[in-house]
Amino acid sequence: MNAVDLIERKRDGNPLTGGEIAWLIAEYTADRIPDYQMSAMLMAIFVNGLDAAELAVWTDVMLHSGEILDFSDVGVPVIDKHSTGGVGDKVSIPLAPMVAACGIAVPMISGRGLGHTGGTLDKLETIPGFRTDFDPPEFRRLLERHGLVLAGASESIAPADRRIYALRDATGTVPSTPLIASSIMSKKLAEGIDALVLDVKVGRGAFKRQLDEARALARTMVDIGKGHGVTTVAFITDMNQPLGREVGNASEIVESIDVLKGGGPTDLIEIVHVLGAEMLVLGGVEPDASAARERLAGAIASGAALEKFLEVIAAQGGDPRVVENTSLLAAASEEHAITAPRSGVVMRCDALDLGVAAMRLGAGRVTKEDRIDPGVGLTVEVKVGAQVQAGDTLARLRWSDSARLSEALPLAMRAFEIGDGPASPPPLLHEEVR
Amino acid sequence: MNAVDLIERKRDGNPLTGGEIAWLIAEYTADRIPDYQMSAMLMAIFVNGLDAAELAVWTDVMLHSGEILDFSDVGVPVIDKHSTGGVGDKVSIPLAPMVAACGIAVPMISGRGLGHTGGTLDKLETIPGFRTDFDPPEFRRLLERHGLVLAGASESIAPADRRIYALRDATGTVPSTPLIASSIMSKKLAEGIDALVLDVKVGRGAFKRQLDEARALARTMVDIGKGHGVTTVAFITDMNQPLGREVGNASEIVESIDVLKGGGPTDLIEIVHVLGAEMLVLGGVEPDASAARERLAGAIASGAALEKFLEVIAAQGGDPRVVENTSLLAAASEEHAITAPRSGVVMRCDALDLGVAAMRLGAGRVTKEDRIDPGVGLTVEVKVGAQVQAGDTLARLRWSDSARLSEALPLAMRAFEIGDGPASPPPLLHEEVR
Repeated sequence: MNAVDLIERKRDGNPLTGGEIAWLIAEYTADRIPDYQMSAMLMAIFVNGLDAAELAVWTDVMLHSGEILDFSDVGVPVIDKHSTGGVGDKVSIPLAPMVAACGIAVPMISGRGLGHTGGTLDKLETIPGFRTDFDPPEFRRLLERHGLVLAGASESIAPADRRIYALRDATGTVPSTPLIASSIMSKKLAEGIDALVLDVKVGRGAFKRQLDEARALARTMVDIGKGHGVTTVAFITDMNQPLGREVGNASEIVESIDVLKGGGPTDLIEIVHVLGAEMLVLGGVEPDASAARERLAGAIASGAALEKFLEVIAAQGGDPRVVENTSLLAAASEEHAITAPRSGVVMRCDALDLGVAAMRLGAGRVTKEDRIDPGVGLTVEVKVGAQVQAGDTLARLRWSDSARLSEALPLAMRAFEIGDGPASPPPLLHEEVR
Repeated sequence: MNAVDLIERKRDGNPLTGGEIAWLIAEYTADRIPDYQMSAMLMAIFVNGLDAAELAVWTDVMLHSGEILDFSDVGVPVIDKHSTGGVGDKVSIPLAPMVAACGIAVPMISGRGLGHTGGTLDKLETIPGFRTDFDPPEFRRLLERHGLVLAGASESIAPADRRIYALRDATGTVPSTPLIASSIMSKKLAEGIDALVLDVKVGRGAFKRQLDEARALARTMVDIGKGHGVTTVAFITDMNQPLGREVGNASEIVESIDVLKGGGPTDLIEIVHVLGAEMLVLGGVEPDASAARERLAGAIASGAALEKFLEVIAAQGGDPRVVENTSLLAAASEEHAITAPRSGVVMRCDALDLGVAAMRLGAGRVTKEDRIDPGVGLTVEVKVGAQVQAGDTLARLRWSDSARLSEALPLAMRAFEIGDGPASPPPLLHEEVR
């Protein structure tokens, strides 16, 4: 076999065989196919796609490129949730302890932020001392003992995906439906889960801006999961405006703690309940979504969910006092408010602009090597449909570097449009894909 | 500027600015953009193309990446010919001395064979002692003294194209019309020529199999030439069956010498005259094609063309005795004849199959690092439209390695189809593009 022949075939829109895909990925991972050939192949796949048979093999080969965890002896259902990424998307942080408090084991493996989207790991690491890097035996011990781990991917999970993802990131081949789907699913299927709930974001602040594209991604991932015997359900949720009020790192932990204490913004609460209820139903803990939502509300009301979060913070080396004293978390001292230039209705509150603004403030990374500033970010005070008076605060930017503030400000300002209305907020949940 | 942004723009079908293209090529040539990003860009260009404005800049930047020769003081018209490559295409070898003998200076810069197509340099180097590597001062001295140089591209000519071509070759991005056009034209325009005649091959044994694709390539190159003030004329000629009878290296020198002595196969003679006449007319040596063809025929009849070939062989360190004693050239000792399985008419004599067969025998390269075997090759005894009897020889394979012969034989056999007819040979010249 010859890499150029395979590139040419895919370039011309012809399918590759399973054997060819297996060879390609194995040789690339073994450094016998150079990056420049793989990147040409990835661009050809970006353009011409992978059919269902190719995608099944592509995912399977990546999945089997590393260790595959097995939690079948844990004794409770093992279910994870994954989001395709958005702005202000801290859902995993309150969701995981809520679901774990209801008897589901949650081996939550998250990523770091890149570009305008935040990353759960970056947020969790703002908790002083909190560790997210565990080898598989430690990971297992934590899951068995606490029913919950909040960790980064081990180097031993799907190493082929790690290599290929880094190359995609550097070659403009990230937003390809089959490549996204196989990247996510190879890692999730290696986690040894019984079921998976996917949150596929759609809109201005998501990888997929159009509903049909998000639906195709959701369908692709659900089918890959089913093909591997893992029940997978996807919810297509809105990412035209940020989720919740906080966009940053430490501030999103504060907002997550609010949810666990029974507070928090309604949009965030709703998404947490939709996804969490599905996890309880898939795990057989509750018979239907309505009962499952009540169960989750009960875990908040009883304090069991917050207690589980405290437990996991302590287990992972973090300082559990942050839950009662959020001033232990980083916070930039300077604040700049953006105000409404006129009275009217909020017509637009753009997740992409606000996500990039937060990144410019230092909350996110332009390149993988960048370090984040945990205390900067922004608070969104109004969302689409809100009535405002001229001079009302639209958002507050917390900053630590004036040069970065001046980069972020124009983006944060143009994110909002005040008009004559009417404007109604986009639906939070667009569709389910099973 | 950021390579990923530019890749994404081209990936999505949007044009790049002149400044962006200049930056991209300069940074790549300076090793500040890695191969894997450039290969993704090349695949995106393969798919989405370059518009006329992008192509003009792309060519210009490659052209100016190295030395630009200037022969404006040579005192005679300086004209080159370039072929897009085919099987049995030894046209340059008799053409250049014929045209030079008529008063045109020909700085003929040729390439090596790759894949199923042969390379003029490989053929010339079968002449014992013949050198093709000259630095620009030597090249100029030869052109001034002899009105003719038969050389390879200097490292100093269009180095950006050299880098990019090597990457295209390894990433399945060679057969892209704008990339082929800019690669050829950047090198040719750097030669300091007054005019250029292009032989764009079309058919089974050419890069472009369809006439409309060949026409688009011809038009693109002619327009680039004109845009740079170099009159450029393209002839689209047939490459469904090999040109002439010989496919190999030393054997194509023998056939070229036949032409210079007034012999040779009629298809080869015709193409040499079509291209050569255009060169004489462009150079102002003759008023029209008819007069120019007579002049070329005169240079053969008088021996002036053969004398010029002898002169250039001696000037470039070769053994001029090969012209009278072709047994000084390499020749494989073993021969295998392919015969007609039935009586009938030759319906097909496939240039691609025969080109690959010759490569398998050792006449060509699979990869750039392969060494060619100068004495192997094949002789095509019949072409489309010929009447044959069962048992007649269709082609003779000269071989030196029986393993290679057994790889080549099936291809050479399937290249021919004998049917009931009628079958007429394809036209030699399809179109002119000016």
